Amino acid sequence: MTALPHRYSQSPVRLLALEAGTLVARDDLLAAEAPLTIQVRGNAQPIVTMRTPGHDPELALGLLHAEGVIRGRADVLAVDHLPGRVDAVRVALDAPARVRAAHLQRSLLANSACGVCGKTGIDLPESGDVPPLPAGPRVDMDIVLGLPAVQRAAQLVFRHTGGLHAAALFDVAGELVALREDVGRHNALDKLVGWALLQDRLPLHGHMVLLSGRASYELVQKCALAAVPIVCAVSAPSSLAVELARRYGITLIGFLRGDRFNVYAAPERIRGLDEARA
Amino acid sequence: MTALPHRYSQSPVRLLALEAGTLVARDDLLAAEAPLTIQVRGNAQPIVTMRTPGHDPELALGLLHAEGVIRGRADVLAVDHLPGRVDAVRVALDAPARVRAAHLQRSLLANSACGVCGKTGIDLPESGDVPPLPAGPRVDMDIVLGLPAVQRAAQLVFRHTGGLHAAALFDVAGELVALREDVGRHNALDKLVGWALLQDRLPLHGHMVLLSGRASYELVQKCALAAVPIVCAVSAPSSLAVELARRYGITLIGFLRGDRFNVYAAPERIRGLDEARA
Repeated sequence: MTALPHRYSQSPVRLLALEAGTLVARDDLLAAEAPLTIQVRGNAQPIVTMRTPGHDPELALGLLHAEGVIRGRADVLAVDHLPGRVDAVRVALDAPARVRAAHLQRSLLANSACGVCGKTGIDLPESGDVPPLPAGPRVDMDIVLGLPAVQRAAQLVFRHTGGLHAAALFDVAGELVALREDVGRHNALDKLVGWALLQDRLPLHGHMVLLSGRASYELVQKCALAAVPIVCAVSAPSSLAVELARRYGITLIGFLRGDRFNVYAAPERIRGLDEARA
Repeated sequence: MTALPHRYSQSPVRLLALEAGTLVARDDLLAAEAPLTIQVRGNAQPIVTMRTPGHDPELALGLLHAEGVIRGRADVLAVDHLPGRVDAVRVALDAPARVRAAHLQRSLLANSACGVCGKTGIDLPESGDVPPLPAGPRVDMDIVLGLPAVQRAAQLVFRHTGGLHAAALFDVAGELVALREDVGRHNALDKLVGWALLQDRLPLHGHMVLLSGRASYELVQKCALAAVPIVCAVSAPSSLAVELARRYGITLIGFLRGDRFNVYAAPERIRGLDEARA
């Protein structure tokens, strides 16, 4: 099951294209980027984030999940767009999650740093907040090698705009389960986790996530909270991403391209690797 | 003049590499990612951001410039690492900038949204805050086409880790003036603008900036505040990036690769283009 591109996710543009010395005026499509307001019922202040329009309720839930506010499907009483608004989502939470949302707001008030530059360095989740991972699953390395081609074929919006990051969920047979796109890498993964949350599929044991770009610590952290045992990235991980993956026991694969990849943490989940090492 | 990689900007890692069916244990280097604390003297709360270590004072200044707190070199009384700390920078500002820093902190307190998801959608700079751009400079399209190769050659850290974004400053002859790298695209540009600020080179009239990835609205906004007339990106711009570039009169070039590029805004600064159109 793949996601069809949202009709607001692309934006037409008139441009001048230089190609091999020839100039052509052309109409093209850009990945859209616009603010989304997320109103948690009972919270005074909304959350505002930039995103590529589309799958907004999933983005709202995934974001609140990544912040530890939402811990399971049962926490979400309702989520929808505000009536008549394509740029605002409202979320109703059960009492415990509402308390955590208020706590998140208070801790943001106490630590005003965040708004300037994104995440603070001090909100790494405590180990106790991260659900433990099972030893498995084990996947064949040939299945891992095949993931990028499947993802590319499914990236409908990217094909048109060349400007979107993707996060894709696969089962251990390499079948695509869901794919979400956004100009922001974090948003794409939040949308994917939000989808899984709505489908009541968390924790994501028995699944793999493929990230279209690099693996930063924040992306590994979001995967850890969703209990994804195997995280693959097309590009490099950062040092802190590797550190977190090793701490949580997540299998972290980088530079997954063509017939090669690197394994930075927990290689035992990749079948074929340990035989080759032996 | 190019920046040498900071000795903390790379982190050694032991990994297993699969290459054409053969498994190799290997030592490699990762781009480092670690928190930086920025303490503005007189502000109660520090700002904490994740970044690739290196050029930390420049990052602090560039970040405060992008937020409108610092408006010129004279605003900065002093900037250095806290004694004995590689992960903390202190900034002393003159009185007007200190007022703006306090105001920024108050507005963050009033709008607690930011910490969850980065920037809010509501802090687009007013047109009055963005310095007006001159009509020029004009550059040859062949010079524009040559920028990526110069940048790649200068990306010393990237060559080792494959994991860093870069922002490079060029003059209109295509000479590299400065280059900064970071795991975060925004940080790389903040470091570059912070460098220019320290060198008292703002506004950056007569210069071009090349971004290693996509051009998001935030990157165009940072360039607008630094008065960069020509912004080039190796990948796609977002719709809002194009909108901002057109509003501010910034020449915005995307998909700058090989012998081609697209011009999304203010093409009149590219010499050769208008002749071809005529």
